[in-house]
Amino acid sequence: MRFIIQRDSLLQSVQDVMKAVTSRTTIPILTGIKIVANEEGVTLTGSDSDISIESFIPKEEAGDEIVEIKQPGSIVLQARFFSEIVKKLPTDSVEIEVHNNLQTVIRSGKSEFNLNGLDAEEYPHLPQISEEHVFKIPTDLLKGLIRQTVFSVSTSETRPILTGVNWKVENNELICIATDSHRLALRKAKLEADNTGSYNVVIPGKSLTELSKILDDSSESVDIVITENQVLFKAKHLLFFSRLLEGNYPDTGRLIPSESKTDVVVNTKEFLHAIDRASLLAREGRNNVVKFSTIEGGAIEVSSNTPEIGTVVEEIQSQSIDGEELKISFSAKYMMDALKALEGTEIQISFTGAMRPFVIRPLHDDSILQLILPVRTY
Amino acid sequence: MRFIIQRDSLLQSVQDVMKAVTSRTTIPILTGIKIVANEEGVTLTGSDSDISIESFIPKEEAGDEIVEIKQPGSIVLQARFFSEIVKKLPTDSVEIEVHNNLQTVIRSGKSEFNLNGLDAEEYPHLPQISEEHVFKIPTDLLKGLIRQTVFSVSTSETRPILTGVNWKVENNELICIATDSHRLALRKAKLEADNTGSYNVVIPGKSLTELSKILDDSSESVDIVITENQVLFKAKHLLFFSRLLEGNYPDTGRLIPSESKTDVVVNTKEFLHAIDRASLLAREGRNNVVKFSTIEGGAIEVSSNTPEIGTVVEEIQSQSIDGEELKISFSAKYMMDALKALEGTEIQISFTGAMRPFVIRPLHDDSILQLILPVRTY
Repeated sequence: MRFIIQRDSLLQSVQDVMKAVTSRTTIPILTGIKIVANEEGVTLTGSDSDISIESFIPKEEAGDEIVEIKQPGSIVLQARFFSEIVKKLPTDSVEIEVHNNLQTVIRSGKSEFNLNGLDAEEYPHLPQISEEHVFKIPTDLLKGLIRQTVFSVSTSETRPILTGVNWKVENNELICIATDSHRLALRKAKLEADNTGSYNVVIPGKSLTELSKILDDSSESVDIVITENQVLFKAKHLLFFSRLLEGNYPDTGRLIPSESKTDVVVNTKEFLHAIDRASLLAREGRNNVVKFSTIEGGAIEVSSNTPEIGTVVEEIQSQSIDGEELKISFSAKYMMDALKALEGTEIQISFTGAMRPFVIRPLHDDSILQLILPVRTY
Repeated sequence: MRFIIQRDSLLQSVQDVMKAVTSRTTIPILTGIKIVANEEGVTLTGSDSDISIESFIPKEEAGDEIVEIKQPGSIVLQARFFSEIVKKLPTDSVEIEVHNNLQTVIRSGKSEFNLNGLDAEEYPHLPQISEEHVFKIPTDLLKGLIRQTVFSVSTSETRPILTGVNWKVENNELICIATDSHRLALRKAKLEADNTGSYNVVIPGKSLTELSKILDDSSESVDIVITENQVLFKAKHLLFFSRLLEGNYPDTGRLIPSESKTDVVVNTKEFLHAIDRASLLAREGRNNVVKFSTIEGGAIEVSSNTPEIGTVVEEIQSQSIDGEELKISFSAKYMMDALKALEGTEIQISFTGAMRPFVIRPLHDDSILQLILPVRTY
């Protein structure tokens, strides 16, 4: 193998596939990046066997030559060293040449690296996915869907299925749900294409987080292919594979109350900042719990009290309070996570009593909701 | 005590004095910030007993009222909570009021904090320093002096005196020296004032690092007062006290070779980047050592070799090589630290053989030098 490549294109691709590479793998060759050069260009692959990322660098783009292939071939190079080297090479043009003994020479200006490569034939194959059913989502919407749900997945392996986000496709609608059993995030989106099929799968939260980091903020579409045990996201010059979690996701539908006894509308930012301050003195306590109560004059009081340190009381003027008076306690962290995930300047919180889960929604937007279970303190 | 203060001024002062506060102290009251309000304004103090920082907020500045003193007094508040609270208060104007039982109320908008305070009488007194002999250094020069030497102090407590920077004042010149016994950094500066006295003290590296973080980049002067066991830096509205290290600093004068056998002049950045790349494969090895040799045609070769990973060879064109041919090995980290500390586009490296310390200087600048001990590998 021998080719000459533009450093910046190579670096971008290396950094993309590095997102899948971990040093904590039981399969030694997966600490490397696979590089394949053929007549069309150069393909890089990184994988930790859960996530696999393939990035393609075409020979030409927008009329500029990016890669000049001198001789097709393939190699696996240690990801950590290769990525550090590419980042620091002195010139725009980089030559990569593999000798018969897998020794790989990287040349740039007067800098010459000689790395011990591994045989690309020994690199695991990527999943074979037949692309019969594909649905499309604009990249920026996809990133939003991920951002607004993935924070609610469980970080504990006690119930592995809860470490993933439940994706359901039905009637041309995608519903994403994440819950760690103390809170839940739900986001819906209409799919444009007809006949998108029906799916009900659980994608690991970590995979979605890494996918989100790689995708550009653009309105171009990502193609999504779901099979029995894999999901494939296809963006421009990029393939992102993730395994799916096995098992049935709990039915969360009945968790979400359909009625409410107290409805409060507040300014999102004002409320977020007040919760943030109220939690400053609550962090020492066991779980960062603040008290919330409706008070006279359409206002809300949020407070916390840690005897050794002191107390804090925040008053927030609401836009409206309808229904019963309420005193309730909840995790300030869960509330702040939920508020940060919501869009819109005003939110509505719907309570059905001090011991029941409550729901936070942007005003006039049904596509997203956040649910939080209260804590018993009052 | 009761006063109303501008949040941003308070926050700046809190963040300055926080640099001296540590949670790892054996004196519980030092986890707090002392606040004293009198007719002139508000004074904040933080200390870890090695470093003490006092920041003064005047009643008025540039015609603007910053503090309105309602009742003089003092209190000590938990630094970590107080600083977090001040950072997040909702309005520009903040009221702080101490009740008889040391309960302290912080009010801002509709936010009200109630903190348990400590008696300011129990806060340790700052060192009393008589200001008979003061010398002045422009702030930007002082920050340069610190930056160019402090990285060379020892991080090991085996020889505690080497964790400090040796400051010598003599004949209106300040000489700063730091060494960890593997490398040495030296920086001289002319002092403007006459009759600055003679000193030879050792200032803890940590103190200088913290001082440097607090000082603005300005050309205003800092007053420096040195006593037997303390140094005081006085900037505008800021006092920074540090204890001095006890013991005699080693005589480093004879370490610095006065002659050389090989002199190499290279571009600083080119050389730095080549060393950086050459060290990429050397980090796995025991101490990040690279090989340096003069080669034909006025060039230099820097290389490293880690059998399991690979080799790298960098060639750098020198401006000039005078004297004997040379092969030498040294720590890439020490060389990069030294090169980053030097100013100027070209540097001269003066060697006196493969086993002797060598000196790096900017071309045409005698005020600074970096010395590195080689490693035996050739």
